[in-house]
Amino acid sequence: MRYTPADELQRRIARFQSMLCQKGLDGALIVQNADLFYFSGTIQRAHLYIPAEGKALLMVKRNLERARQESALEQIVPLDNPKELPAMLDAYGFGVPARLGLELDVLPVVHFQRYQKLFAASRLEDASGLIRTARAVKTPFELERLAEAAELCRIVFGSVPQWLREGMTELELAAEVEACFRRHGHQGLTRTRGFNMDISYGHTLSGANLAMPSFFEGPIGGVGLNPSFTMGSGTKAIGRDEPIMVDQVGVIDGYGVDKSRVFCMGRLPAHLERAHSVALEILAGIREKARPGVTGGELFDYALQKAKDYGLADHFMGHKEKVAFVGHGVGIELDELPVLAKGVGMALEEGMVFALEPKFVFPEGAVGIEDTLVVRANGLETITLFDEGIIYLP
Amino acid sequence: MRYTPADELQRRIARFQSMLCQKGLDGALIVQNADLFYFSGTIQRAHLYIPAEGKALLMVKRNLERARQESALEQIVPLDNPKELPAMLDAYGFGVPARLGLELDVLPVVHFQRYQKLFAASRLEDASGLIRTARAVKTPFELERLAEAAELCRIVFGSVPQWLREGMTELELAAEVEACFRRHGHQGLTRTRGFNMDISYGHTLSGANLAMPSFFEGPIGGVGLNPSFTMGSGTKAIGRDEPIMVDQVGVIDGYGVDKSRVFCMGRLPAHLERAHSVALEILAGIREKARPGVTGGELFDYALQKAKDYGLADHFMGHKEKVAFVGHGVGIELDELPVLAKGVGMALEEGMVFALEPKFVFPEGAVGIEDTLVVRANGLETITLFDEGIIYLP
Repeated sequence: MRYTPADELQRRIARFQSMLCQKGLDGALIVQNADLFYFSGTIQRAHLYIPAEGKALLMVKRNLERARQESALEQIVPLDNPKELPAMLDAYGFGVPARLGLELDVLPVVHFQRYQKLFAASRLEDASGLIRTARAVKTPFELERLAEAAELCRIVFGSVPQWLREGMTELELAAEVEACFRRHGHQGLTRTRGFNMDISYGHTLSGANLAMPSFFEGPIGGVGLNPSFTMGSGTKAIGRDEPIMVDQVGVIDGYGVDKSRVFCMGRLPAHLERAHSVALEILAGIREKARPGVTGGELFDYALQKAKDYGLADHFMGHKEKVAFVGHGVGIELDELPVLAKGVGMALEEGMVFALEPKFVFPEGAVGIEDTLVVRANGLETITLFDEGIIYLP
Repeated sequence: MRYTPADELQRRIARFQSMLCQKGLDGALIVQNADLFYFSGTIQRAHLYIPAEGKALLMVKRNLERARQESALEQIVPLDNPKELPAMLDAYGFGVPARLGLELDVLPVVHFQRYQKLFAASRLEDASGLIRTARAVKTPFELERLAEAAELCRIVFGSVPQWLREGMTELELAAEVEACFRRHGHQGLTRTRGFNMDISYGHTLSGANLAMPSFFEGPIGGVGLNPSFTMGSGTKAIGRDEPIMVDQVGVIDGYGVDKSRVFCMGRLPAHLERAHSVALEILAGIREKARPGVTGGELFDYALQKAKDYGLADHFMGHKEKVAFVGHGVGIELDELPVLAKGVGMALEEGMVFALEPKFVFPEGAVGIEDTLVVRANGLETITLFDEGIIYLP
């Protein structure tokens, strides 16, 4: 098992602390699993206090021993009852924070109300924007994890041709894809931050199912197996001459990359082949344009304009129901920053990582591509390298 | 695809409405996926308003067409922008609710703050207790779904002996178990309600890994694959003469049952065999005692007393870190009501369904059992029928 080194945690915390200082917050109380992992290196039932200045304090209800083994933080103490939080912060010299940051984008109201009572003299503010901004820029350590996730995807996507056969159901193909991920070390869990953003491994869809929109914020949806999880693979048989899109999140050591490729047994009609070429042109164009300083909004506008130039705007990022983005940050969660969407002013920075997914959806299926890319000083680096064309099988 | 019939939805809503009336709430605004599925029969990006009296109104952002196809509710309308919610409620004759119920146990604070602005003249209250209480009693329609989930578990657990071989890793066994679930129609997602209660399919653990506590509220934990998901299967090789516990949630059509069995290649030491017998005795004793009117607290006390009688209290429901329950409601979510825990005054009612999991944890492994049971007028009915003893393999 690989643990996050002490200097790595320190680097992450220091970056976040400078943001806390800038915003005038005295500290932040971190409780959500993904954020706990990012800042402490482990997920326990715990509270992590990050003061604007000074050493972070990890207070653990369950399990202290594991926390001490897995986390390289210096200060790890037991805390059975959250009621003891204010006294504990005081004991470690933090006093009563006048302005305390919380993860208000994910924290349920009943939990918040408990903290309101405990910190009655503090102003509780939303620190989730700072946390997400801090996490958007990956460290070299994180980029190594993402490269391993990309390698996992390469193995799985490379095996798809050996599983595909005419007449198998989407579900049967999904079971092969997911079992292969799992055997190679996928943790079986894809984390999302957004409320109600349920997902399992990803989407394995074919033909018209690709055009079925769902509650999930993505260009392709899928009919799903039942109305309690209305997306993803269904029991449709996979046929010849239709697009099969495998869109999956490979997760290794907590870090995930997002990747899609189109397979086809036989041959796709010319208009789908053409749309796929346009998607590749958009991918190449964004690779050309993107660099630190360019905004997510500019890149989305460029992609949409390209789609319009080719008369494909009606099919870009959805057909009946479109999504208003062409890329999204990835890392510990699937819906990180930056977002490449209309009007987004956040500029790319070196070390950001995002999935770029120009896709075109038609009633009879969808084509396009998704790769995960790192923002480098002079442009983008693709980490999910793989054949970009439609992968034709006999 | 099977949809929830109109009379079934009506029955669920009517039961909940009588609770709203009793508590004096004018209505409840439902937004969480599991609750949306329960009351509307589908999961879309939507708001469901359930007035204390009158017809429910499903307001859908994405996707209206699917909502109309999958939900048997009469009133399904488009709603693009949540800002239009108050006007929409007014247009349907609901006026401004003086006391409005929300799912405050799961709703993130930033969402809540938006509703506070939209319903500035309303008192926003927590309706999650009512929702969870309403959902705790299953209808015959729901019991049929749970029986199908139990049948899925029977198929998977029955296949475990054919996969097990000495030296395979926990992860390899888990991949087989999960792929089998998936091929047979498991949706790949297990829903939990509790904040941070991340889970995939379940736990497939062996030997000492069974004694490793985790953040997850359960008697067995597991080391996991990495510190970003610190529970479940790891890369430990499965050996002879040690307990292998398969603890899984089988989900079909949105409904899940929870089930555990112990397998062993060779023979377990006598103290583990004895503890397993005590677990079976507790299971049998609770089957004997439980009926409508008996509280979850009484049943927990009985179980703990039995463990004490046999000198096994130190190992009951955990070793170093115990959990304070012996059973939990299951259904659409894994952490439903009722809970069989210390001090719980909620009485069993006919139609409730819970997983009962008397387990004993030792440093070298864990034994015990988990079955899902229905509360009937005259006692409990086991729906996850399967060999209850330790399943020995050569």
